[in-house]
Amino acid sequence: MKQATTLTTLIQGGTITLPEGMMEADLLVQGERIKAIGRGLPIAHDTLVVDAAGCYVLPGVIDAHTHIALDTGIYRTDDDWFTGTRAAACGGVTTVIDFAAQFPGQTLREAVAARQEEAQGATIDYGFHVMVTDLPPGREAELGDLVELGTPSVKLYTTYRPNYYADDATLLRLMSACARLGLRPLVHCENDDMVAAQIAALTAAGETSWQHHGQSRPPLAEQEAIQRILFLADAAGCPVHICHCSTARSVDLVLKARADGQEASCETCPQYLLLDHTAYAGPEAWRFILQPPLREAGEPEQLWALVEKGAVELVVTDHCDYTATQKQAVDDLTRTPGGLPGVETLLPLMFTYGVAGGRLTMPQLARLLSTNPAQLWGLWPRKGALLPGFDADIVVYDPEPETAVAAGQLHHQAGYTPYEGMTIRGQVRATICRGHLVYCESEFRGREGGGAFVKRSSLPGLPPKLA
Amino acid sequence: MKQATTLTTLIQGGTITLPEGMMEADLLVQGERIKAIGRGLPIAHDTLVVDAAGCYVLPGVIDAHTHIALDTGIYRTDDDWFTGTRAAACGGVTTVIDFAAQFPGQTLREAVAARQEEAQGATIDYGFHVMVTDLPPGREAELGDLVELGTPSVKLYTTYRPNYYADDATLLRLMSACARLGLRPLVHCENDDMVAAQIAALTAAGETSWQHHGQSRPPLAEQEAIQRILFLADAAGCPVHICHCSTARSVDLVLKARADGQEASCETCPQYLLLDHTAYAGPEAWRFILQPPLREAGEPEQLWALVEKGAVELVVTDHCDYTATQKQAVDDLTRTPGGLPGVETLLPLMFTYGVAGGRLTMPQLARLLSTNPAQLWGLWPRKGALLPGFDADIVVYDPEPETAVAAGQLHHQAGYTPYEGMTIRGQVRATICRGHLVYCESEFRGREGGGAFVKRSSLPGLPPKLA
Amino acid sequence: MKQATTLTTLIQGGTITLPEGMMEADLLVQGERIKAIGRGLPIAHDTLVVDAAGCYVLPGVIDAHTHIALDTGIYRTDDDWFTGTRAAACGGVTTVIDFAAQFPGQTLREAVAARQEEAQGATIDYGFHVMVTDLPPGREAELGDLVELGTPSVKLYTTYRPNYYADDATLLRLMSACARLGLRPLVHCENDDMVAAQIAALTAAGETSWQHHGQSRPPLAEQEAIQRILFLADAAGCPVHICHCSTARSVDLVLKARADGQEASCETCPQYLLLDHTAYAGPEAWRFILQPPLREAGEPEQLWALVEKGAVELVVTDHCDYTATQKQAVDDLTRTPGGLPGVETLLPLMFTYGVAGGRLTMPQLARLLSTNPAQLWGLWPRKGALLPGFDADIVVYDPEPETAVAAGQLHHQAGYTPYEGMTIRGQVRATICRGHLVYCESEFRGREGGGAFVKRSSLPGLPPKLA
Amino acid sequence: MKQATTLTTLIQGGTITLPEGMMEADLLVQGERIKAIGRGLPIAHDTLVVDAAGCYVLPGVIDAHTHIALDTGIYRTDDDWFTGTRAAACGGVTTVIDFAAQFPGQTLREAVAARQEEAQGATIDYGFHVMVTDLPPGREAELGDLVELGTPSVKLYTTYRPNYYADDATLLRLMSACARLGLRPLVHCENDDMVAAQIAALTAAGETSWQHHGQSRPPLAEQEAIQRILFLADAAGCPVHICHCSTARSVDLVLKARADGQEASCETCPQYLLLDHTAYAGPEAWRFILQPPLREAGEPEQLWALVEKGAVELVVTDHCDYTATQKQAVDDLTRTPGGLPGVETLLPLMFTYGVAGGRLTMPQLARLLSTNPAQLWGLWPRKGALLPGFDADIVVYDPEPETAVAAGQLHHQAGYTPYEGMTIRGQVRATICRGHLVYCESEFRGREGGGAFVKRSSLPGLPPKLA
Repeated sequence: MKQATTLTTLIQGGTITLPEGMMEADLLVQGERIKAIGRGLPIAHDTLVVDAAGCYVLPGVIDAHTHIALDTGIYRTDDDWFTGTRAAACGGVTTVIDFAAQFPGQTLREAVAARQEEAQGATIDYGFHVMVTDLPPGREAELGDLVELGTPSVKLYTTYRPNYYADDATLLRLMSACARLGLRPLVHCENDDMVAAQIAALTAAGETSWQHHGQSRPPLAEQEAIQRILFLADAAGCPVHICHCSTARSVDLVLKARADGQEASCETCPQYLLLDHTAYAGPEAWRFILQPPLREAGEPEQLWALVEKGAVELVVTDHCDYTATQKQAVDDLTRTPGGLPGVETLLPLMFTYGVAGGRLTMPQLARLLSTNPAQLWGLWPRKGALLPGFDADIVVYDPEPETAVAAGQLHHQAGYTPYEGMTIRGQVRATICRGHLVYCESEFRGREGGGAFVKRSSLPGLPPKLA
Repeated sequence: MKQATTLTTLIQGGTITLPEGMMEADLLVQGERIKAIGRGLPIAHDTLVVDAAGCYVLPGVIDAHTHIALDTGIYRTDDDWFTGTRAAACGGVTTVIDFAAQFPGQTLREAVAARQEEAQGATIDYGFHVMVTDLPPGREAELGDLVELGTPSVKLYTTYRPNYYADDATLLRLMSACARLGLRPLVHCENDDMVAAQIAALTAAGETSWQHHGQSRPPLAEQEAIQRILFLADAAGCPVHICHCSTARSVDLVLKARADGQEASCETCPQYLLLDHTAYAGPEAWRFILQPPLREAGEPEQLWALVEKGAVELVVTDHCDYTATQKQAVDDLTRTPGGLPGVETLLPLMFTYGVAGGRLTMPQLARLLSTNPAQLWGLWPRKGALLPGFDADIVVYDPEPETAVAAGQLHHQAGYTPYEGMTIRGQVRATICRGHLVYCESEFRGREGGGAFVKRSSLPGLPPKLA
Repeated sequence: MKQATTLTTLIQGGTITLPEGMMEADLLVQGERIKAIGRGLPIAHDTLVVDAAGCYVLPGVIDAHTHIALDTGIYRTDDDWFTGTRAAACGGVTTVIDFAAQFPGQTLREAVAARQEEAQGATIDYGFHVMVTDLPPGREAELGDLVELGTPSVKLYTTYRPNYYADDATLLRLMSACARLGLRPLVHCENDDMVAAQIAALTAAGETSWQHHGQSRPPLAEQEAIQRILFLADAAGCPVHICHCSTARSVDLVLKARADGQEASCETCPQYLLLDHTAYAGPEAWRFILQPPLREAGEPEQLWALVEKGAVELVVTDHCDYTATQKQAVDDLTRTPGGLPGVETLLPLMFTYGVAGGRLTMPQLARLLSTNPAQLWGLWPRKGALLPGFDADIVVYDPEPETAVAAGQLHHQAGYTPYEGMTIRGQVRATICRGHLVYCESEFRGREGGGAFVKRSSLPGLPPKLA
Repeated sequence: MKQATTLTTLIQGGTITLPEGMMEADLLVQGERIKAIGRGLPIAHDTLVVDAAGCYVLPGVIDAHTHIALDTGIYRTDDDWFTGTRAAACGGVTTVIDFAAQFPGQTLREAVAARQEEAQGATIDYGFHVMVTDLPPGREAELGDLVELGTPSVKLYTTYRPNYYADDATLLRLMSACARLGLRPLVHCENDDMVAAQIAALTAAGETSWQHHGQSRPPLAEQEAIQRILFLADAAGCPVHICHCSTARSVDLVLKARADGQEASCETCPQYLLLDHTAYAGPEAWRFILQPPLREAGEPEQLWALVEKGAVELVVTDHCDYTATQKQAVDDLTRTPGGLPGVETLLPLMFTYGVAGGRLTMPQLARLLSTNPAQLWGLWPRKGALLPGFDADIVVYDPEPETAVAAGQLHHQAGYTPYEGMTIRGQVRATICRGHLVYCESEFRGREGGGAFVKRSSLPGLPPKLA
């Protein structure tokens, strides 16, 4: 992505979110980078001035777990990279880290190349974690290619037999190779035997309608798998990231590992912080079919407490743009595609229920949605903070307006949102990705192909050095 | 087992092992029970006097994990219940807790009945843990039969697919039922995937000779399975006992669970305390093929330290009387029956390397070999201590003689011992089982069928009440 | 104390309290020692038979903290060694460990000798802790004399300036010497500055009537001093015993020190388990003036919980036989002698509110009142358990009768009891001290001078070996 | 301090120290504040350009524990506020927090006013902690005046009887009042009894020469007092800061309190990180007489480890400008004034042995020397970071030159330095205090009275919010 002329933008009069706190200052962007941060910065000729008075200015959101244009072989989401990232941009997201799946017969290099091809139309920046599904003993060195390609993180699954599932010996073997070669695995943790037994029992009892979805994948299945993965990662000497923790105990297990000196991190999602299993009681239960499922009432509060105290490094969406039609097709949890749209609502929800709700400070929010994913996933010191020299990935957020979530206002394809009707405080006023205004005043301003693939560096760890 | 006349025996002048310490006193046995403990007890008419001067008097050893007359379907040990328990009696063992395996198609009740039939010839007392191999959802109530039958403990396996192996959902389901019905599971912990992967790798590399046995079942496979079982038992609200811990970390995991309030216990065996993987280097490696295998040099010392501090509740033998011929047949770890003879050497080895070696006090030894197994496995307040009213299960042990272990001197069928040539301090002078002298002055004095099946009570826990 | 003829006593048909639990058995006493324990023991000629059917048989109570015939220079209790120990015997106490105070100018040896002289009339056995009040640098070696004299424990105070008070440097110096020479200090812990400030404030406010007693010595003063003493003892490498803990936090501090590897123990008293500061509200407040004072409502329950879980090693009385007249003289907390009578009610209260109240088992009770004090204070393996060869110190306790505490029924001099009117379950049926029946069927049967000074051994620690 | 014209300064091309790491950028100062931070900032007319190429740019050092122009009544340091703060400025220090002592008869308000009068000549900014020596019960409300005066921190002592010493009851009372009124106490912790006993013993033995200084105030005296102060602060519900920790265990105690949820912080000094008690062996021992004394060889390494891991919040100097003549007067530790000069060497030593020595990153150094003291002591969000809007307190440090410490090159009055001859990496190139260049190119450029008293806000805690 090249720029013919050098853009200069001055974000003026906003309250800038820095690690140390909030401060009134202007932010000057030149070309694709932040140039300066200061008070009363002068306005040069040809400068685009964004009035941020009364607004918060944050580093662009990095949604580090999305599934844009997902094709599982059984189900296919309705978006493509243009529409998917357009929704992201409208929600203040300037980078997504999505997934490149290895299909049977592919090398890892081929898997990444194929996914890069698909993603050409992206309107914001993007990177990939790689779903390794077929790397028998002897082929571990291919993981080294991922480091070279700038995708040094592999997604592993303890469930979804036989497609994505890896058994314990395979998990240990791959994590050992990751440790050796400098990759960080991220793992979907659910005990496959337990899930299978639950589904078998529900099936035997004729109880597979949506309302039973919560029972089909019990919290214990998630927690056991997390404990096991942490054990194996420790044995492999490998850092590890636990995906979409849906219970407080999940996070506690990660915390304990960390206290014992292990390099372990985790993420949760807005759906686990804001919704619970009572959603499965009504006729709209299809809206909430995802894996892991929503949990007991009460869990969200406990998860929030862990997010507040910094125990959870990332909040991501696990965005999956299945349509209402796909999801409503049949009232059977075993036949409904699992996954919810959410990339566009990430920042507004986290601001509303986190910051406005008194649980988070703005610096904490910026850390969860931008600094931490940048540092954990190798985008630092290029993205993740509002500093001179960094990519000019910026969101201007007006904290005042009060609205309600409405699918009709959102830009994804699904035609529904699990958060329909929930109150929202504030709204994105502008999104700038690498210096380009991609969203402003309720209007998408980006362009297809405006985004770029970003190579991520290997194993930066938290907290890394700037220089 | 009935007695025509009432036997009276006075064990005179020995040093009696009590929980509070050692004391000089006489022990009077009347019929099948201990009648009195005192100083200078008078000798009544018709009393058999056992001179215990200079000897330790201990409660009879309870070997809570043996495999007498084992038939796995593939291999069969060479002993029967007469010869197997004769060897035990000669080693100071007055009770064994062996296993009743459920064969395909059997109810649990049938499995116990069949094993009771086989055990008729026993010369000492015996009970059974029950290997549950086929109890699909809906049949859990059968576990209640085991409580009624006095065999309230089930043996579960995380390995040996497809025979004994239970998957995580099954383990959780059975342990939940155990918790509900009052049984205590004991579990053979090794991660089956990891073991299978190791054996596959060794097979692929043509490295299946005995010298590779240690590699075929790595410590991590044991430790991972223990951690998982503890997690599942905790979720099930079920007490759990971890079998034959071969590494210090195995015990540490149990300790940690206990510190977190879980009711968890464990055992180790003399082979893990006295031997290590260097045994696999020589041509006699066949002698040491067992599961889990012997571990790294250094592990034994660490395990001892844990035994000394009370972290390990039981020392058992996992006695398996395969013959030298069976074990030597082919130098292939995948085709050699795993298991070692040891019931007769348990007490002498533990006295020699524990007490004489300065690691254990006599009360600790009695606790490990008698009181703890009695209390844990429901034989209390009937066996496990030298108290008036208890079964007169007694060993008189002379601490002085120094000999060496020699297969030719032992009474099992295998024709070899893994401890050949090791120094032994002291020897059993007399073994009394329920008032009957079954071994004395190097001679077996018991009789076929002299032993009795002992019903064990349910879930006594440690420490239980006397009355 | 010599016996002309050898007494033989058979305590028949009772339920004997052993460490492992309770059992029905007879107990045979010959001379001053226990001879045998057994079922259906024969009755020899000339044997005194004590019918213990329906009764518990316990090792004689050891009250390890009493102040018989105390003279502080300001106040003097009304008892002497005959009347004081007579009350003890009537309550099932067979040994007291009292105090020998060093008066100005005395060597420690002189202090012990003087106190031995005073104690000649004792009806039961007795030993002394030594209150060291004047041992300047250079005279530490005198502590070695105490080991030789069989009084190897020194009482230290952090309060009562200027008499008993020792400053931190002195405490550290003396505890270092104790560590070197093999003594165990026991410490009265209250921060003297804090107590003085409270009393000054109350005095300034004219609030020194009894109702303010609780405020005069706040819990924090006790807790701070305990934490400090534990710190100093740790620095000195010295075991330490914390006296009369009146709050749960006091015990928690000791527990934590123990968890950190320190050899620390503690005691509480019935008054802190059964009474609280509401006692200071009424006109009878004088009955409850003691140091430390009774605490907040709720504390007793928390203290009980710690006693139940074994965190408190001893329950003692801190018995002080000031008369009602002395205590009632003037309604001024600064002029009322502090201390309560209690040696005779120790066992009945602890049985009633401990065992009958469902908080303690009989073996726990025996441990708190007999085994632990014997082992901690060097009377083991001579006293503290019902074992052949041990001193025949025995209590027969009938659990059935239900009465109420009444000063008129008790044998001390004070003329009142702080427990007046409280329900009591059971009663002492017989007390035997070194083979002599000293109390039986509501009647004192001992004799003046029948007790003996017992030399205690040095630093046995818990748990010690029998032989 | 008023400025006639508005100064504009551009610090160009340096490597700026930010919390997130280091970055190349320019820093623009306008008037007394930082205006902007950016890359390639334009140079306006009348701008003073400071070339920082190859240099680190840090927030000005805040030495939060100095004793400039100290008069204890017995000894008087040789500096005044001009000379003392000139030395500070030359060392990159832009603010000192010194002490205002309450003299007998003074109110706290008078004490602060008197000290403010003395400090008029300061060349850099300054604030005061207040040494409260005489505030009997009833006068606690005066502490509220300190909040109003901008000196909301009181210095307490557990030693130096009878001048500064406060007994435990007083400490508790004052800390309770601090908690109520919003002050943070900082405490000099040494057990006075222990110190007095050691000095008495040394005096009795005729061993008061300097070489015995280490023995006169043992580590245990410090550690005991810290543990006690933490206990009392916790009871008072009061945050607390522990001064000049000289041993690793001191810091560990603070760490543990913090882990238990207490708001506790601590500081150490270069002398405890770089020197040890071997300094007392030679004839120059007088150079190292201070309280607490230098500790065992080995302690410095352990203290460093704690500083590295963030357990120590501040590094301060405890600067005391006694002259060589005063200190050398008599070889008697009881008659030598305690305290070392050090304000000028703070930054160079910490850079050399911290950053260049591989123990600290630059952001850690900035946190220890500037951000943390600003946040802890209420100077935030005005001082402590290089952010637009903050006071332009800036140091430019050239990391390259290698020199040795030499008293002759330093600007304090003492005529000696305890670090004489030690290697130094780098040097201060420029110091800017509130926009004014006070030191540049080896020359002091400030002016008498150029510094200002800074009011500190109450109880900000760590980490505070920017706005």
